[in-house]
Amino acid sequence: MMNGRQYRESLDDGRVTYFEGRRIDRLADEPVFQPVIDSIAATYDKHVHDGAVNAALAPPTSEADLREHIDTLLESDVLLNVTFFGQMALLTAAGKLAKDYPELAERIYHYTDATQHADLRVTECITDAKGDRAKSPSAQPDPEMYVRVVSRGADGVVIRGAKLHITAASFCHHLIVMPTKAMKAGEEAYAIACAVPVNSPGVRIIDVTTAPTGADTRHYPASRRKHMPDGFVILDDVFVPNEHIFLDGQLKYAASFAHSLGLWERLGGTAQMVRQADELVGMAQLIAEANGLARASHVRDKIAEMLIHATMLRAGLEAAIMHSEKTEAGFTFPNELFTNAAKYQGAANFSLMVRHLHDIAGGSVVTAPSIADLENPDVGAQIRKYMTGAGDADGTYRTRLFHAIRDVTADSLGGWHHVTNVQSGGGLVAQRLVATAHYDLEGAKKLALEANDLKPLGSSGH
Amino acid sequence: MMNGRQYRESLDDGRVTYFEGRRIDRLADEPVFQPVIDSIAATYDKHVHDGAVNAALAPPTSEADLREHIDTLLESDVLLNVTFFGQMALLTAAGKLAKDYPELAERIYHYTDATQHADLRVTECITDAKGDRAKSPSAQPDPEMYVRVVSRGADGVVIRGAKLHITAASFCHHLIVMPTKAMKAGEEAYAIACAVPVNSPGVRIIDVTTAPTGADTRHYPASRRKHMPDGFVILDDVFVPNEHIFLDGQLKYAASFAHSLGLWERLGGTAQMVRQADELVGMAQLIAEANGLARASHVRDKIAEMLIHATMLRAGLEAAIMHSEKTEAGFTFPNELFTNAAKYQGAANFSLMVRHLHDIAGGSVVTAPSIADLENPDVGAQIRKYMTGAGDADGTYRTRLFHAIRDVTADSLGGWHHVTNVQSGGGLVAQRLVATAHYDLEGAKKLALEANDLKPLGSSGH
Amino acid sequence: MMNGRQYRESLDDGRVTYFEGRRIDRLADEPVFQPVIDSIAATYDKHVHDGAVNAALAPPTSEADLREHIDTLLESDVLLNVTFFGQMALLTAAGKLAKDYPELAERIYHYTDATQHADLRVTECITDAKGDRAKSPSAQPDPEMYVRVVSRGADGVVIRGAKLHITAASFCHHLIVMPTKAMKAGEEAYAIACAVPVNSPGVRIIDVTTAPTGADTRHYPASRRKHMPDGFVILDDVFVPNEHIFLDGQLKYAASFAHSLGLWERLGGTAQMVRQADELVGMAQLIAEANGLARASHVRDKIAEMLIHATMLRAGLEAAIMHSEKTEAGFTFPNELFTNAAKYQGAANFSLMVRHLHDIAGGSVVTAPSIADLENPDVGAQIRKYMTGAGDADGTYRTRLFHAIRDVTADSLGGWHHVTNVQSGGGLVAQRLVATAHYDLEGAKKLALEANDLKPLGSSGH
Amino acid sequence: MMNGRQYRESLDDGRVTYFEGRRIDRLADEPVFQPVIDSIAATYDKHVHDGAVNAALAPPTSEADLREHIDTLLESDVLLNVTFFGQMALLTAAGKLAKDYPELAERIYHYTDATQHADLRVTECITDAKGDRAKSPSAQPDPEMYVRVVSRGADGVVIRGAKLHITAASFCHHLIVMPTKAMKAGEEAYAIACAVPVNSPGVRIIDVTTAPTGADTRHYPASRRKHMPDGFVILDDVFVPNEHIFLDGQLKYAASFAHSLGLWERLGGTAQMVRQADELVGMAQLIAEANGLARASHVRDKIAEMLIHATMLRAGLEAAIMHSEKTEAGFTFPNELFTNAAKYQGAANFSLMVRHLHDIAGGSVVTAPSIADLENPDVGAQIRKYMTGAGDADGTYRTRLFHAIRDVTADSLGGWHHVTNVQSGGGLVAQRLVATAHYDLEGAKKLALEANDLKPLGSSGH
Repeated sequence: MMNGRQYRESLDDGRVTYFEGRRIDRLADEPVFQPVIDSIAATYDKHVHDGAVNAALAPPTSEADLREHIDTLLESDVLLNVTFFGQMALLTAAGKLAKDYPELAERIYHYTDATQHADLRVTECITDAKGDRAKSPSAQPDPEMYVRVVSRGADGVVIRGAKLHITAASFCHHLIVMPTKAMKAGEEAYAIACAVPVNSPGVRIIDVTTAPTGADTRHYPASRRKHMPDGFVILDDVFVPNEHIFLDGQLKYAASFAHSLGLWERLGGTAQMVRQADELVGMAQLIAEANGLARASHVRDKIAEMLIHATMLRAGLEAAIMHSEKTEAGFTFPNELFTNAAKYQGAANFSLMVRHLHDIAGGSVVTAPSIADLENPDVGAQIRKYMTGAGDADGTYRTRLFHAIRDVTADSLGGWHHVTNVQSGGGLVAQRLVATAHYDLEGAKKLALEANDLKPLGSSGH
Repeated sequence: MMNGRQYRESLDDGRVTYFEGRRIDRLADEPVFQPVIDSIAATYDKHVHDGAVNAALAPPTSEADLREHIDTLLESDVLLNVTFFGQMALLTAAGKLAKDYPELAERIYHYTDATQHADLRVTECITDAKGDRAKSPSAQPDPEMYVRVVSRGADGVVIRGAKLHITAASFCHHLIVMPTKAMKAGEEAYAIACAVPVNSPGVRIIDVTTAPTGADTRHYPASRRKHMPDGFVILDDVFVPNEHIFLDGQLKYAASFAHSLGLWERLGGTAQMVRQADELVGMAQLIAEANGLARASHVRDKIAEMLIHATMLRAGLEAAIMHSEKTEAGFTFPNELFTNAAKYQGAANFSLMVRHLHDIAGGSVVTAPSIADLENPDVGAQIRKYMTGAGDADGTYRTRLFHAIRDVTADSLGGWHHVTNVQSGGGLVAQRLVATAHYDLEGAKKLALEANDLKPLGSSGH
Repeated sequence: MMNGRQYRESLDDGRVTYFEGRRIDRLADEPVFQPVIDSIAATYDKHVHDGAVNAALAPPTSEADLREHIDTLLESDVLLNVTFFGQMALLTAAGKLAKDYPELAERIYHYTDATQHADLRVTECITDAKGDRAKSPSAQPDPEMYVRVVSRGADGVVIRGAKLHITAASFCHHLIVMPTKAMKAGEEAYAIACAVPVNSPGVRIIDVTTAPTGADTRHYPASRRKHMPDGFVILDDVFVPNEHIFLDGQLKYAASFAHSLGLWERLGGTAQMVRQADELVGMAQLIAEANGLARASHVRDKIAEMLIHATMLRAGLEAAIMHSEKTEAGFTFPNELFTNAAKYQGAANFSLMVRHLHDIAGGSVVTAPSIADLENPDVGAQIRKYMTGAGDADGTYRTRLFHAIRDVTADSLGGWHHVTNVQSGGGLVAQRLVATAHYDLEGAKKLALEANDLKPLGSSGH
Repeated sequence: MMNGRQYRESLDDGRVTYFEGRRIDRLADEPVFQPVIDSIAATYDKHVHDGAVNAALAPPTSEADLREHIDTLLESDVLLNVTFFGQMALLTAAGKLAKDYPELAERIYHYTDATQHADLRVTECITDAKGDRAKSPSAQPDPEMYVRVVSRGADGVVIRGAKLHITAASFCHHLIVMPTKAMKAGEEAYAIACAVPVNSPGVRIIDVTTAPTGADTRHYPASRRKHMPDGFVILDDVFVPNEHIFLDGQLKYAASFAHSLGLWERLGGTAQMVRQADELVGMAQLIAEANGLARASHVRDKIAEMLIHATMLRAGLEAAIMHSEKTEAGFTFPNELFTNAAKYQGAANFSLMVRHLHDIAGGSVVTAPSIADLENPDVGAQIRKYMTGAGDADGTYRTRLFHAIRDVTADSLGGWHHVTNVQSGGGLVAQRLVATAHYDLEGAKKLALEANDLKPLGSSGH
């Protein structure tokens, strides 16, 4: 088990990161990365006494256990979340591989056991560059638009390509590379899943973040403390030793990793959206009270819609847990249908909930003066005076409330939420497809036939 | 315990019903009422061997028991549903009355026990005439716009007024009259809750129904078999003996009956909407297949939205059951927040789901020839030929599928669904209000403050 | 020019109609058809003095003329509308045919001139049976799923098939048969457009209508007066003489008729929806006032959304007229983009507007007693008393208002509106496609590039 | 007439601006203000040869003139827009004041004439601090929550208060102070409208902007070039001479300025939203093409919804112009109903359109590397390789396209659009109210009555 200090030291392992056009020699020296490293280190310190392994990363084995995991993950940094999701994806894939390729399953079990005991953090690398999205990997003009094996030897393979939108790539220990989708005959080289230590030669990461980078960070009460860079990961002829290879050309299982990961990512996304939805309700109510409009009919209507939305997302999450299922290996996983339905509803309605919040709050969301203005000796006192709201809502409090709303919904971080709520777990189309795949369509047809005294096709007598 | 035959006989008790302008001397002689009576009688026959009382009407005492009740109610006729809801409303109100008015609570317990053993069906009478809805009962130009006590004696009271939208009024044994809302000082006469045998002198019922009344009923595959008249109940100086009076001027508890009933009605409504949503998905998939368009992208998108909607309603119902609570008397009742949120979501989106279905199905929903046309020797064969769809979907099957879609969504019954889905349980506004009342708004505010490093108002130091 | 009496006589020409399984020997003898015939005859009487031809049917030649036509059509019966649309579709197609097939264009000009002078009503027959919608006409298991030429001689052709959803088929003089879509090589037999007198041997029509057929029609204030049967038209080896053939295998122009007709149908549909949207606003305001809730905040919000919807539809119609264009032949036609966008918006939001109306009105939309009940000597007075609303709204007025809302939005006619608003003009998908085809997508791309300092692809230097 | 150079010089007049906590001594020295000043100066240079006054600021006197004004304003900087709106508000208010207070009207005419000839830019100051929004100005605990007259002398008055969300406050010449709403008896001191030179003693402005302030501005292709600071304007005992006072206690006209301004602001907002909607369509199509997904069904569906939205907004704008009206003084103003309906539709649906764009584009909207990364010698070439899309879409182009989408919809500027689209012109509630006030509700009621054979209340015989 690692503690926070050991985690910090582990980052100085030669990993190659770029940010805003600059090579970052030491992550800890880049101010914008400080809160990221701090939050991950704090999680390490919190779990260091768990026992042999971090309890939060042990696979859940019951409904109650699954529920507890979700609560823990919500309280933890993002990297712990993706480590858990990545590991569960590997273990689930192993369960499927076991029948046809027991040696691959064995490798995964060995790998996950080792990383758990070494207390490593991993992040999953799914999305390829993709080039022309209407073309399959092998039909691309440039054959490296999807990560592939470019050469192989007795002790391992060499891979090339890029993986996009990689959460916390610069801050983990291993990248878990997985195919982004099913592959067809002739695309065996693209059916590669493996673990890649982030400091492997050939790995370069370009980070993008929503953290405030220039202005007074106090103007950004949420994003300055809580952000996680997304990495653009270049894999430039990276050697992967055999023991880190989990799939290598077994087409039948190419999609198994992504499917399993998708479920866990959507579960995590839904859990986050439940909390976010409650937070938006809270913001709406706070600013309505500060504005003196908490009793206005149209304000109450909008807040009611927001809290009903939050409640329905929570219902979806609860139902996903209550109807959880077990793998053959005994791991508990959430119900696919409820998870996907809730994720879809959350993603599809987030922007409307934000519209309600903006409609309730007013234009000061984007025009409230900054903290530095509040402190200015010439004008600070008057800004505080004129930003005063109803009841106890003094000018500083109300101004900061507007900053929070702006930061979370109408600035860089807000934009990130708008995009990632829709895109995480594959976009609205993917969520519709998965939900459809798990819905009992035949049961619904049967119900419709019976309710209307109709016999099914193929039966005699209608 | 009564059986079906005994129920049929019990209807000939002098009750006074009107339908389409005519006094109906004997309900069983009116053809349109036949399926109504048949379905209620069938439920009697099903439960006659339950024991001392109908198990479906025993108050639930655990989460599992509640779930089972809901399943039973979904399989039963509407009158059994409202009997159960009415009884639960009485029992819940009794629990509240017990502290201040133990004798009223006692009367309720005695009454519900007696009706259960006599195996009577009851229906709740909530909605008053209301007159000018902007005015309270005592401010109405006509004092009888809400049911009130007009005189009282040693052995009982006399009430006058009307109750609207009363499900199955003509087919039950007792009307459970309850105040529609809280009453204020001076409105004691309106704070009346009581049981009224449906054949009491002064009770007259005017029925309206969605059953096909004139044309060939085969054109209405759903509504001809499954409909339940709504009654307009006139209470014209009806005497109520003391033992049937459950509230008489105790203002503090005037709203208790309606509140409790509202929860159970919304639970029942949600359960029905879950099934209805699945049925709409089934219809959409069946007609898409019959049209040969089940693989079309826009059709699949719409069906996906419909099944996600159905799944989220089910999640809400599941969460309401999972988070059920107990009264002091030990009765299990569903979670208010999840029940109301799900009811709201179902009501608010029903018409969009129907739009999707109509968009998928096509114009034949309203233009498909009738069963009688299909049977006509001149043109029947050709209608069948030209109504033939894809695969095995022959012309008769496909035509009948269009009839079903029309009947359930685009004709009298469909219109009834459109209106009652929105209105049952009090309209969208009422559902928003109740959901808001049960949501943890303070918790959401706390979450929003903490997430943005803001101290709550009234604390020092922000 | 014909007058109303002459029109009535013209119906006794041997045409073959079926309704509810019965052959209708004489249309005028079927009670449900009376208001249909009356309304058409009234239009004849109104225009009989127009001059050589009905002014409402003369092709518009200016923006002002187009606007006037739309106003006239809105005041006229549906058959005059479809006659105008069908004729404009023919004339537009003629303009396109003129270059390659001047003789066909000539025939059309001759035909439209003759029918105008004979003052005939025509209806367009577009939608084929279609069978498996995923298959083209020539790939259907049954080759007659689309109307086709089955034999030909020197003086004409024989056609076979069926046309569905044909407005007023039994009440017009000629059916204008047109291909429903583009045809490909090998499908020449399906590329047939022609005029078919409705009494031609082999033509049989099965009518479906939303008119009340059994119950007291006073319960249906709108549908009993204003309905138009949709016909299922069987063309069973119908001979068409050469002078009535407007397209016969010219694949290039197979879709020209449907495209042109679609524009006019959507224009007509939009004009109807503008009026309908205003009518829904009016109903909502009337019932809100009658209920005493016209000042309630949530009621005003909903009515505001409804009237903004109505206003935007009107804006779309106005823009379509203002940006009308001219054919080479000098006929004015409405702007395709605005027409389709408005039609789409109206179709997509109709059900939400109805939900608002139902939410405002209350459950009496479906439970209000009938006119016959109001007249019943036992209970009529009390129904009137208890249906009394706010202000001057007496019980009869308010009851009839509920009937109107039910009839127009929550009964057979209401269902017909729900379906046909979505389906007329080809369903939401078709409307999206046509709108996209007429939108200046390249201009929008240019705007986006310029606004963000981006050079277009293919240019040098970005 | 001023030219650009003269405008730049006019800014050095002692005006007092603060930004990010700092007093800005000279606006031209603050880098972030450069593009603002440049764009305003460019407009001056463009119009300097117009004649005696800037043609774009002359009141429109015909429908064609109004249309031309809108086109010009769309091509101009924001300050020219608000100058025009402010002036039209003054002139419209003057027309109303003329009857009762001709001397005030005269002052306004004189003032607007003078500023036009001096070629000054003005900005309107409407929104007060407001404190507790549930309380009127005179009921606030702090009497200065609305701007008011605190003392008066023979030659003028002294005002105190603050005005919020003031567009371009630091960059104009005069602030046009207007009451934010109607005032009641006892609130005469708040009924103050006047012109205040921005360099008047006591005026201090705190600016907030969406311009990138720290990071490499090339990452912000739109916001770095086109932004306009919003000012928080403190009026600390500012003296206003009589000739600049346009209203001083005339309660009857307190709301006239805001009403008139609201119309013009909403017209301007609608015109901007039409363009913005087209730009969003363009971005969606560009990224769909760059991703190779322009033919995907779900992408086409979303783009169709976006372009229909854009088209309907345009229709609303067109109808507002086509149905423009004239003041008694001969000025043309747009139709209130269509303007407000279009503004509402645009505001209400903006966030959904952005969701469509994000759904189409993908996660690279927020994770695409920066321009500086593209230029980095180590990783630039590989980023370009892996960001390559379909067809000609090279990596640099596609990356910049993602930057543009992020900047305009998912970053500071995007957040500003989300908030201001909803809030400008008073929030959704205000737009609903104004639309309702101008809709022909009585006409709609009449239509509904006639369509259903109902007589209006108060007439005899229903």
